[in-house]
Amino acid sequence: MRSIQLDQLRRFIADSLTRSGLEEPVAAITARHMAYADAKGADTHGIMQLPVYAGRLRDGGINKRPNLAWERETGNTAVLNADNGMGHYVAHLAMERAIELAERGGVSFVAIKNGNHFGAAASYTRMAADAKMIGFITSNAAPLLAAAGGTERVLGNNPFSFAVPRREEAPVILDIACGNVAMGKLTLAHTKGESIPLGWALDKDGAPTTDPLDCLERGGSLVPMGGHKGYGLAQMMDILSGVISGSKYGKEVGRIGDTRKPTGVGCSMFVLNVAKLMPLDEFEDRLEDLVSMVASSRRAPGAENIYLPGQKGSETAAVRAETGVPLPDKLADRLRELAGELGLEAGEYGL
Amino acid sequence: MRSIQLDQLRRFIADSLTRSGLEEPVAAITARHMAYADAKGADTHGIMQLPVYAGRLRDGGINKRPNLAWERETGNTAVLNADNGMGHYVAHLAMERAIELAERGGVSFVAIKNGNHFGAAASYTRMAADAKMIGFITSNAAPLLAAAGGTERVLGNNPFSFAVPRREEAPVILDIACGNVAMGKLTLAHTKGESIPLGWALDKDGAPTTDPLDCLERGGSLVPMGGHKGYGLAQMMDILSGVISGSKYGKEVGRIGDTRKPTGVGCSMFVLNVAKLMPLDEFEDRLEDLVSMVASSRRAPGAENIYLPGQKGSETAAVRAETGVPLPDKLADRLRELAGELGLEAGEYGL
Repeated sequence: MRSIQLDQLRRFIADSLTRSGLEEPVAAITARHMAYADAKGADTHGIMQLPVYAGRLRDGGINKRPNLAWERETGNTAVLNADNGMGHYVAHLAMERAIELAERGGVSFVAIKNGNHFGAAASYTRMAADAKMIGFITSNAAPLLAAAGGTERVLGNNPFSFAVPRREEAPVILDIACGNVAMGKLTLAHTKGESIPLGWALDKDGAPTTDPLDCLERGGSLVPMGGHKGYGLAQMMDILSGVISGSKYGKEVGRIGDTRKPTGVGCSMFVLNVAKLMPLDEFEDRLEDLVSMVASSRRAPGAENIYLPGQKGSETAAVRAETGVPLPDKLADRLRELAGELGLEAGEYGL
Repeated sequence: MRSIQLDQLRRFIADSLTRSGLEEPVAAITARHMAYADAKGADTHGIMQLPVYAGRLRDGGINKRPNLAWERETGNTAVLNADNGMGHYVAHLAMERAIELAERGGVSFVAIKNGNHFGAAASYTRMAADAKMIGFITSNAAPLLAAAGGTERVLGNNPFSFAVPRREEAPVILDIACGNVAMGKLTLAHTKGESIPLGWALDKDGAPTTDPLDCLERGGSLVPMGGHKGYGLAQMMDILSGVISGSKYGKEVGRIGDTRKPTGVGCSMFVLNVAKLMPLDEFEDRLEDLVSMVASSRRAPGAENIYLPGQKGSETAAVRAETGVPLPDKLADRLRELAGELGLEAGEYGL
């Protein structure tokens, strides 16, 4: 397995997206968010998706030159009609706007209508934390979860993230989805020829299964976290991101693998301006007190460390800033192939 | 087991709280929220808690005549300093304010500093839904969850609720906490002499246990839903409700059973005014479409129905409006005893 340096990775993504038809600033911002996922170890949300996005841009699934429009603006809320534009870019714009609105009003809500998969949710809530605000974002996604008592994929494994600014350390960032695990974990188990633990997936009749193919290929579904709780959360995240934004929802949300078709993904975000609620310094003191209370709490035998949400990602990012991002051979081959398709020199990016 | 009619139950709560020193409007509003919990079957959050609240009012744990003050008000955010007043009443006031702020601004955030246990979270988000808005509320609570990798109770089983208005039906309401189950389920299993399933609780060394006493009496903790996900969520809910409101947080939050001491509970809420984002009629059409898509999805063999979040509670409420609320003998005895202590005639309330 070889590695690629982060700046080369980001440059390769940006150039590939430009060659695929995106305007340069759109490609650059998208590349930044994708590289963030690779840096912090969220490998399924970074460069691994580049061939998929390039395919969608090639086949018309993503609108290369969308007509972005702000709709229904109030002093604290707004809807960005993304016109099926690149998901990362429109989420970036929407979060910038949400931060701006919260700067004045204290709290803001911005929704995206007809966006696309935006990669790692934490990459946007982190923008709020960098502005010393608390950020929340959610999105819907193609259906993978059944309702409690159901067997049909009717809700996405909808992701959501909270980020909270700390004084000097990286923000506390939670970035999770409503299922116990991501579909990627099942794919990985299948690739390795392994069975999966009970509690990850259900077969097409809603029965617990240890065979990843029952879910991957035979119409099963992912198990929601906490059973009915994750099911309820997935539905709420869909209402917040899909229903109220004017996007698709439920089982109508498209798969990113259908490269010719818009996904209709919806997204929404809240930003809370900490300083309007409490002097920032006092908030930071209190937060440091809480996180040190948690981090220094009694450890289980054998546990080396108690991690805060987002901390493992930050540690991975520190390592990868030095060592680069490991690229499995199959992915490296696919990226070199993509370079060829787009007329780029793979060698110039260390690929 | 006898039953008590809901209006008698509400009247008994209100009169008991008035006799315990609360002002009449405060007692009336608190009784309404407690009775809501009993109506919808959230029995651990209703009249069952009345003896505890009466004890706290008697022993000074709750401030009978707090000096409520609005602090740090902006156009869209505010902090209510509850001065250790009755939790249900101050949450009611704060939600009224949040709705008012969202009426104008589209989105609002209100926090409560030094509140108290407020009962069923859904009782407040429902107020937002009744005003055709989406409500969110969270609170912290005395520590019951360990960090991932930890064994010490350092975070509460923090509750949160979302409510979304439907056109005619009762709102879609999610009302959950961050643990796989509530402590009450362990108490119930212990009372019945039953063991508990793996996945509910950990013993004091962080190992999974089937003995409820390992958690109830021997220093164990509740298992967070989805493992690290529920742990992260509990921490985020504590930051939102405890840290930013100026209340207690983490393991400093007091137990309601310590009747002499303030709990220092924090709380916060978001309200989103649907009509600022989308014409209400369109939103309602889309929501009906989503919920019917979910409710009519293919059922698992043996599943009679697919329930929406909150639907079971509504059905229970419809039944209990007729039959009243069942009172276990032990609870009925305790309530009669309380009536005696407070100089009330139990018989006048059908007790």
